[in-house]
Amino acid sequence: MRVMGVDPGLTRCGLSLVEGGLGRQVTALDVDVVRTPADMDLAQRLLGVADAAEYWMDTHRPEAVAIERVFSQHNVRTAMGTAQAGGVIALAAARRGIPVAFHTPSQVKAAVTGNGSADKAQVTAMVTRILGLSTAPKPADAADALALAICHCWRAPMLERMAKAEAQAEQARRRYAERLAQQRKAVTK
Amino acid sequence: MRVMGVDPGLTRCGLSLVEGGLGRQVTALDVDVVRTPADMDLAQRLLGVADAAEYWMDTHRPEAVAIERVFSQHNVRTAMGTAQAGGVIALAAARRGIPVAFHTPSQVKAAVTGNGSADKAQVTAMVTRILGLSTAPKPADAADALALAICHCWRAPMLERMAKAEAQAEQARRRYAERLAQQRKAVTK
Repeated sequence: MRVMGVDPGLTRCGLSLVEGGLGRQVTALDVDVVRTPADMDLAQRLLGVADAAEYWMDTHRPEAVAIERVFSQHNVRTAMGTAQAGGVIALAAARRGIPVAFHTPSQVKAAVTGNGSADKAQVTAMVTRILGLSTAPKPADAADALALAICHCWRAPMLERMAKAEAQAEQARRRYAERLAQQRKAVTK
Repeated sequence: MRVMGVDPGLTRCGLSLVEGGLGRQVTALDVDVVRTPADMDLAQRLLGVADAAEYWMDTHRPEAVAIERVFSQHNVRTAMGTAQAGGVIALAAARRGIPVAFHTPSQVKAAVTGNGSADKAQVTAMVTRILGLSTAPKPADAADALALAICHCWRAPMLERMAKAEAQAEQARRRYAERLAQQRKAVTK
């Protein structure tokens, strides 16, 4: 599965492309960081990020897009910009019919390092090792985008199984409710 | 000036169109609320909001888009969704070359009621009165979208004058610095 990983942001937006193979085999195909100047108009910055992400999607044709889910940050203004950058990229994927998944920072850290509260250096070190890179990806946004894609490659099969199990449970529940209703009807007749 | 006001959101997104005339004259041309179901995929919800806003822009051809700037909300998840909805609409405007402005809730409240911490009922009442509507716009998101557009009609000329004054001050500062540098050069020669 070819996954595009996104560490969303306006100042720096990390984009990666990772090919997931059998088991835990993952290969980095590309990584880049898109930047927009802080003194630029917000709408123009979103346009810059969206254009770059759309070019990336059209060139690399990923089968899934994995974006970091922003929860909270010390700076609310930055958090909003980050959420908006992630939003325009999710929209671009939706327009192309590419499924989008959001993973929280701790899910990503747990997936690549085994520790949900690992620091940036640990994440970068593990990403470098997992992908068998000769040098560590820089800046941190590039490493994070790769970590996102790896996390998706490894979590996606599990999430799919869970969704299937939930759908089956829901179907069983509905069938049971229907049977119950029929029995009640039969009793009241 | 024809202004599109946006009260961004995923569950309910208010869209309005207001024509600003001479002085404080404003006329409501249209108002609507776009909804997306809460159990829908986030990317698909953003697509729903973006499609509706783009159709609105292409039909009404606003000269400016005014969006509420999200600062913080009790529920971080909701705030992120709101920011993302605003982001995809700002992007749609940028793609069409329509200037986008963000106004904070207190700027909007202050503009229409004279009180930056007015409650929803006061905002709705003033919007109804300012636009000379026979019935109050409902739900609150519709009234908020109208308030956003009114706020922009009234604030835009002032913001433009301020931007011009700042640009002139910046030019004067640069000229002064240049003259200073030339004088220094003349002294050291």
